[in-house]
Amino acid sequence: MSQVITFGEVLMRISPRGHKKFIQSNMVEFYFGGTELNVGISIANFGGNVRHISAVSDDFIGETALSYINKFGVDTSSISLSKRPLGVYFFEVGAVMRPSNISYNRSHSSFSEILPSMVNWERALDDGKWFHWTGITPALTQGSFDTLKQGLILAKEKGLTISADPTYRSGLWKYDKDPKEALTELLHYSTIFIGGINEINEVLGTEYNYSNEAFIEASKQLIKEFPSIEKVFDKIRTSVNASWHKIRARMWNGVEFRETEDLDITHVVDRIGTGDAFAAGLIYGLQKLDDDYKAIEFASAACALKHTYEGDVNLATVKEVMGILGGNTSGRLTR
Amino acid sequence: MSQVITFGEVLMRISPRGHKKFIQSNMVEFYFGGTELNVGISIANFGGNVRHISAVSDDFIGETALSYINKFGVDTSSISLSKRPLGVYFFEVGAVMRPSNISYNRSHSSFSEILPSMVNWERALDDGKWFHWTGITPALTQGSFDTLKQGLILAKEKGLTISADPTYRSGLWKYDKDPKEALTELLHYSTIFIGGINEINEVLGTEYNYSNEAFIEASKQLIKEFPSIEKVFDKIRTSVNASWHKIRARMWNGVEFRETEDLDITHVVDRIGTGDAFAAGLIYGLQKLDDDYKAIEFASAACALKHTYEGDVNLATVKEVMGILGGNTSGRLTR
Amino acid sequence: MSQVITFGEVLMRISPRGHKKFIQSNMVEFYFGGTELNVGISIANFGGNVRHISAVSDDFIGETALSYINKFGVDTSSISLSKRPLGVYFFEVGAVMRPSNISYNRSHSSFSEILPSMVNWERALDDGKWFHWTGITPALTQGSFDTLKQGLILAKEKGLTISADPTYRSGLWKYDKDPKEALTELLHYSTIFIGGINEINEVLGTEYNYSNEAFIEASKQLIKEFPSIEKVFDKIRTSVNASWHKIRARMWNGVEFRETEDLDITHVVDRIGTGDAFAAGLIYGLQKLDDDYKAIEFASAACALKHTYEGDVNLATVKEVMGILGGNTSGRLTR
Amino acid sequence: MSQVITFGEVLMRISPRGHKKFIQSNMVEFYFGGTELNVGISIANFGGNVRHISAVSDDFIGETALSYINKFGVDTSSISLSKRPLGVYFFEVGAVMRPSNISYNRSHSSFSEILPSMVNWERALDDGKWFHWTGITPALTQGSFDTLKQGLILAKEKGLTISADPTYRSGLWKYDKDPKEALTELLHYSTIFIGGINEINEVLGTEYNYSNEAFIEASKQLIKEFPSIEKVFDKIRTSVNASWHKIRARMWNGVEFRETEDLDITHVVDRIGTGDAFAAGLIYGLQKLDDDYKAIEFASAACALKHTYEGDVNLATVKEVMGILGGNTSGRLTR
Amino acid sequence: MSQVITFGEVLMRISPRGHKKFIQSNMVEFYFGGTELNVGISIANFGGNVRHISAVSDDFIGETALSYINKFGVDTSSISLSKRPLGVYFFEVGAVMRPSNISYNRSHSSFSEILPSMVNWERALDDGKWFHWTGITPALTQGSFDTLKQGLILAKEKGLTISADPTYRSGLWKYDKDPKEALTELLHYSTIFIGGINEINEVLGTEYNYSNEAFIEASKQLIKEFPSIEKVFDKIRTSVNASWHKIRARMWNGVEFRETEDLDITHVVDRIGTGDAFAAGLIYGLQKLDDDYKAIEFASAACALKHTYEGDVNLATVKEVMGILGGNTSGRLTR
Amino acid sequence: MSQVITFGEVLMRISPRGHKKFIQSNMVEFYFGGTELNVGISIANFGGNVRHISAVSDDFIGETALSYINKFGVDTSSISLSKRPLGVYFFEVGAVMRPSNISYNRSHSSFSEILPSMVNWERALDDGKWFHWTGITPALTQGSFDTLKQGLILAKEKGLTISADPTYRSGLWKYDKDPKEALTELLHYSTIFIGGINEINEVLGTEYNYSNEAFIEASKQLIKEFPSIEKVFDKIRTSVNASWHKIRARMWNGVEFRETEDLDITHVVDRIGTGDAFAAGLIYGLQKLDDDYKAIEFASAACALKHTYEGDVNLATVKEVMGILGGNTSGRLTR
Repeated sequence: MSQVITFGEVLMRISPRGHKKFIQSNMVEFYFGGTELNVGISIANFGGNVRHISAVSDDFIGETALSYINKFGVDTSSISLSKRPLGVYFFEVGAVMRPSNISYNRSHSSFSEILPSMVNWERALDDGKWFHWTGITPALTQGSFDTLKQGLILAKEKGLTISADPTYRSGLWKYDKDPKEALTELLHYSTIFIGGINEINEVLGTEYNYSNEAFIEASKQLIKEFPSIEKVFDKIRTSVNASWHKIRARMWNGVEFRETEDLDITHVVDRIGTGDAFAAGLIYGLQKLDDDYKAIEFASAACALKHTYEGDVNLATVKEVMGILGGNTSGRLTR
Repeated sequence: MSQVITFGEVLMRISPRGHKKFIQSNMVEFYFGGTELNVGISIANFGGNVRHISAVSDDFIGETALSYINKFGVDTSSISLSKRPLGVYFFEVGAVMRPSNISYNRSHSSFSEILPSMVNWERALDDGKWFHWTGITPALTQGSFDTLKQGLILAKEKGLTISADPTYRSGLWKYDKDPKEALTELLHYSTIFIGGINEINEVLGTEYNYSNEAFIEASKQLIKEFPSIEKVFDKIRTSVNASWHKIRARMWNGVEFRETEDLDITHVVDRIGTGDAFAAGLIYGLQKLDDDYKAIEFASAACALKHTYEGDVNLATVKEVMGILGGNTSGRLTR
Repeated sequence: MSQVITFGEVLMRISPRGHKKFIQSNMVEFYFGGTELNVGISIANFGGNVRHISAVSDDFIGETALSYINKFGVDTSSISLSKRPLGVYFFEVGAVMRPSNISYNRSHSSFSEILPSMVNWERALDDGKWFHWTGITPALTQGSFDTLKQGLILAKEKGLTISADPTYRSGLWKYDKDPKEALTELLHYSTIFIGGINEINEVLGTEYNYSNEAFIEASKQLIKEFPSIEKVFDKIRTSVNASWHKIRARMWNGVEFRETEDLDITHVVDRIGTGDAFAAGLIYGLQKLDDDYKAIEFASAACALKHTYEGDVNLATVKEVMGILGGNTSGRLTR
Repeated sequence: MSQVITFGEVLMRISPRGHKKFIQSNMVEFYFGGTELNVGISIANFGGNVRHISAVSDDFIGETALSYINKFGVDTSSISLSKRPLGVYFFEVGAVMRPSNISYNRSHSSFSEILPSMVNWERALDDGKWFHWTGITPALTQGSFDTLKQGLILAKEKGLTISADPTYRSGLWKYDKDPKEALTELLHYSTIFIGGINEINEVLGTEYNYSNEAFIEASKQLIKEFPSIEKVFDKIRTSVNASWHKIRARMWNGVEFRETEDLDITHVVDRIGTGDAFAAGLIYGLQKLDDDYKAIEFASAACALKHTYEGDVNLATVKEVMGILGGNTSGRLTR
Repeated sequence: MSQVITFGEVLMRISPRGHKKFIQSNMVEFYFGGTELNVGISIANFGGNVRHISAVSDDFIGETALSYINKFGVDTSSISLSKRPLGVYFFEVGAVMRPSNISYNRSHSSFSEILPSMVNWERALDDGKWFHWTGITPALTQGSFDTLKQGLILAKEKGLTISADPTYRSGLWKYDKDPKEALTELLHYSTIFIGGINEINEVLGTEYNYSNEAFIEASKQLIKEFPSIEKVFDKIRTSVNASWHKIRARMWNGVEFRETEDLDITHVVDRIGTGDAFAAGLIYGLQKLDDDYKAIEFASAACALKHTYEGDVNLATVKEVMGILGGNTSGRLTR
Repeated sequence: MSQVITFGEVLMRISPRGHKKFIQSNMVEFYFGGTELNVGISIANFGGNVRHISAVSDDFIGETALSYINKFGVDTSSISLSKRPLGVYFFEVGAVMRPSNISYNRSHSSFSEILPSMVNWERALDDGKWFHWTGITPALTQGSFDTLKQGLILAKEKGLTISADPTYRSGLWKYDKDPKEALTELLHYSTIFIGGINEINEVLGTEYNYSNEAFIEASKQLIKEFPSIEKVFDKIRTSVNASWHKIRARMWNGVEFRETEDLDITHVVDRIGTGDAFAAGLIYGLQKLDDDYKAIEFASAACALKHTYEGDVNLATVKEVMGILGGNTSGRLTR
């Protein structure tokens, strides 16, 4: 697989074990994550070549983050070191009807205060074939917006495929920028749109509902307004409760609408990063499988599998994802 | 919320992690609990003012118990220190068709050997508006019965609302006292009855079955024989197995019968203290919500949520309980 | 219960906690197991007298293994010490559609290199009434095959009941021996056959399907070709996914076919050793209960319970198994 | 003991267990601390009434911090809630010649962005008899300087004893303020100076050495320039290496110089917060013991004991400190 | 080695890890111990045949205790099951000048309420050659005193060697019995006295000091008043602090006084049970080594080694103890 | 720093935490190590470019090993995957006079069964400037000897500096090869000899003692018989006990003898891999520092620091080592 470039914040995630709250135990575990990094590591676990671009703190926490990324064979040579601390988030895992809780400590972090001068995009994109970005990055600060935009300009120039997951979280946009405007500007560089009705409505200012019909209409309109976009991919989650989800995928690739079957995740272990696992599966599938439908099948199986791993990152291999596509959803142990 | 007074034993609970048995691992966790304390802490987590009355050991275990109660902002200033050790219970968490196991080391504990002279009820009830007791306390020893009775007499005098959860466990009554007689004596001081058919049958000597019709009849007869009692509240648990329960509530408030929908707890984390969470929700609801039906809705949602926390104590806030009543039973994370 | 003899490898199992992978945490737990030892320990937990025959390493790991077996009161006095290391396996617990992973380090282990000269069968079988073996042992090496065969010859001579669980795993047979031939030779010493269609097909060279009709036919043919075999017992697993199984049992005892109801294991904790729990339940049931049907009921309840314990070994007591047969599958705690 | 008021940042401290680095294990422990809070909690453990003034985050991390402070019975009712995250520091515990490592994430924290409008000093100082501040607070931001100054003005007005520990860390002062000037301004409100030659040299602009003679001269000059200061207390640490320290104390109380014997801490468990334990011991001792020398003896024993507790906080009781003063430095267990 | 019989309480010990206090972490570890059991297990680890006599609770805690004792190959067949809970103690490990803390929950325990009718001494002493008792047992209750006394009478009749470790802890004697009188009565059955000046002074009512001269005089007087006693063995501990001890042994065997060199334990891991390790080493040494001096050398090396193991029990083997006697006190790893 | 090549086995090390034995806890931790890998990782931590050559198992344990090595930025691209399991060793950490225990499960491991055909030395040595080997590798099997020899031949041809640490462990040499002969053959390719009197005596067949004079003589004779060897470096350990060591270094570089001061490691955390830390420090020092004496100073400080890290690997950076050389052996925390 050719070089995939991901760009975004590296966050330290700190959680009590199991379903405990911080008030219950002073023993906690940490992982690293961040939506774009999650995509990168998952692709590396599929055997892809991945380079992640970011900024981490110039201390033992930053070193630990780099060593974590190295562990998965993702290239960290273009990550810059910053005097600012690494972003952190605290996470309490819910269960059944109890939602999970999240507390971010990321404003003023090493990545939030990134500036275009801190990334050598020429070197960062070297050999790159695919660039992936999300709506989290432009939401943080003017600096992160500007740095991403510079990367997109160069990536487009160099002919990379650009996938966008414009995840819209209104709470994040705290600096002086209109989300719709910012996303619109960046989407014009993108080829692949990974997102659902909420994201389309946000960038188009429309009010489509969640039906398949509406999805097709919305996708068509999106492609019309953003001619660089070729295909739209969406993941649909049905939640019985925090411990029991179902996942399926649908797509409009400019030619046809397709939808997969629901995958039933009866015992969710950790749902953080499942959307990222979907995006990673899609980026892998679109490059390595025969057609777009196989790609969304692969992506939704990857997404389902991620629900069984602790932490932000999908640890599944291609063989494991293919096992599910091959019909083994019974989790049978082979010796 | 005005001052709620709870009175009862503080127990140290010691459990292996997850579903392990003591024979499998020498690493265990401890919490503190006790049926009345659980009610008190849950109400404090709802924002209430709570004072717990008890006796703990005068050593580092007793100090740890007090610090645990302080953690939740419950007033510990009327808890007395005793030369006797704190009560302990060991708990192995079951799964599916395997029941949990429990082993008590509480006879001769600091609370079991409490005497009326050890509690200054005048000070303990200062500012009190509500007093909650359960059938565990009178079951332990003559001293605990006498101490509770003195508290009830004064509470009645001072006009506190008195709620009773006469949980009947035949195995507990080891001293020379007839349970029916003892509970009858104490119930005459009580206004709110929290309990089901088993408890009513025990105190009336009747044999009602579990149907709603029987519940209404039983409640009417109870109120007839105990004129101080105004309302009867019951929680109904349906167990698929140890890991999967359903909870609903019903009531007879002297005027009407109401029943809530089942809440489906597909992945039980810890069922200890769920009845106490119901009682706490009810005490909160009866004081803060508009009517009795809203109170049992609140109480059964609180009870359902408790199944998702480890330990004896319900950690849910009012906002979290209200989230469920507002229809969010899907455990969706909000960022 | 009279003396039961089990013979087979003792393996150290090393696993991360919960559903973690080794790449995620350097903190792991170990247990000891091995298919025949699992059977032995389970029978000891039912109150039986059990002696396990094996070879372990002559170092602190072997000592720890022996102390683990002693813990359950299984007689270790006939286990020999070897200069070779104890066999190890690494295990990652799957969830939902993610299969568990297993990695063996057992070739050249202390048991794999066992030789007939290392076991004093006369002493090992002293007072024995029942001998249990499985198809794992003859699969390992010529030495383990020979040692087992010597034991079977003497056990037959002494009139012990011999149960065989010829579990067939093609990947195991790495030395120069034909599995069908080896198993055939050993089955001629056996009375009780514990195994399903796969095992019967393997030893008969047939192609029966999984229907009850086929099972009856296959059993009849098996008994015809192996006249020492009197009864055939089978356990049927239906997997929703790795976290949700159903178990039932069926039998042909030469006279009648019987089948139990499915037991629904909605939240699997650990499925390793569940087949061994079935075999142990059967060996106990055939000796202590009135008829063969009660034995398979007991065995399938034992098997279901094992899914709720971590580790290889069934920790259930007779009382706990009987609780399920008595209808308590709701896992209700009794205090 | 009368009300002691402490004011300063509450930090969450996150550390791997034992001497591990973050790169070695993803399982870590957290405590809460902060130099002024450490003083407050230690005094509470001596039986004092303490109120801590601060700002914490308005989320589950802030709640956990409050519950931690409540645990020790310190009054948290004047701590305000902030939209900014709680400050965090990461800590790797060194050993022998390996220094510990520390990484702060505290700029822009809930406390760093405190403003005078966020503290109701009238209520916060209610009943107060003693106010303690350190040089960490004015070093953070203009807002924290201003808030402290307002508190000191009112405390002086109300006649509280004011102790200052002007710990000077040059790396901390990042905003636009001269440390010498800022500390000078604040010291004019203070009565008790807790600090050594470094701090005196910093505020006086002198270059005294560490000898006792120089300490006496320096103290005299300090008192001359800051007439509000009555007494100067200093703690001297001799480090064999990171695992082996010695502690003694000296003082100039305006009348006489005294110095204690070295206490030999041969196996340091955790040295964070040992200076705070000294300050707490001193504040206790000056109020409860007969003379200043007894106070520094108590303070240095308290400081030595702190080296044996994990975390930032001294857990020793008066009885335990007195045990050392009474000559029991052998750590003999009494049953 | 012939059968050694030990008789005494089995206690569950619960401790936080490392040097933590209970207030600091809700994760704790448990071991089992008890002074006489510690002696028994240590002798079993030296290869001896040991039978322990006691009473444990008839529940999963009692089962866990039995499985713990079985682990070391100590015969548990004469331990009776009781309706009373197992005794527990909580332990916080001190460091340097901080003493350890202990909290007992053992009155009314399964062993404290033992009665002569609960032990079949005829069967318990079967094949016994040596009986060991301590002063803890008669201190608990009249029942434990009586049961021990019955055992001693029969042991003397049968000609067993009887060793006494009359450890005197004044706090323990809470029932209506004079310690001096009780110990005097029981010492008349004993041959070997393991104890120091404190114990001799207690039983003789004398006031000898700790010098060797006084020890010799005291021993002579002891033997004079208790003609059954043949030899007196004493262990001398010098504590630098809780983390640094030195150990030596001395003896008066009726013929000569001998004293060993100090062994320097520079980094104490756990000092509980070190006296028991001494007693076990002595019982082993007196049976297996050439002379009394070699026995005390062995015993003091065993005692020193115990300081390096967590828990109550000495895990050292004869080879490891002999390694120290052979001059290897450098802890050099051999591969 | 130019490319350093290390070649040797990757072992999984499994240990209980702290000073526990396996019999005491089923919770253990793992690290990866192996003498040559330890050297490689330590050099990478000094900022060097390192490529490790080895063979690991083709399963999730092998993947975990690779990810561990990647974590430190060591190049794993020339490590081959094998059907054989990864070598494992179990380790119990001693204390004071208790030696550590080790149990190897490495014969027949993926590395032990390496063959020359499994390493592409041309690619493996690409860009290499320094090659490091130890006496462990040739001791394992003929295959590992042959593979190493092929590497040495090519390394010599390509002009790499070759350092040898011929650590002689007689217990390891189990195949049909004379250690002296094998080491002699391989040493003829080497330039730098890292080893002491034991190793020199082994390869020369001499009996030099440990004095400096003997060391000089021995070194001269070694260089005479192995003309490729230019310099001899030795590390001297003085053990007070398992918890307290002292380290110094000495050298004969063909021109002069030099010796460093003792570094006092009063609280050893983990002594595994300390010799490897010395070798790594030396390889770094000889390349980056001015002279040989500075190199041994650096190496012995690196070695001393390693005693403070858990696991096999030295985590110290150049800055940390230089800190000690700069005189900061007091472990003072800098903020």
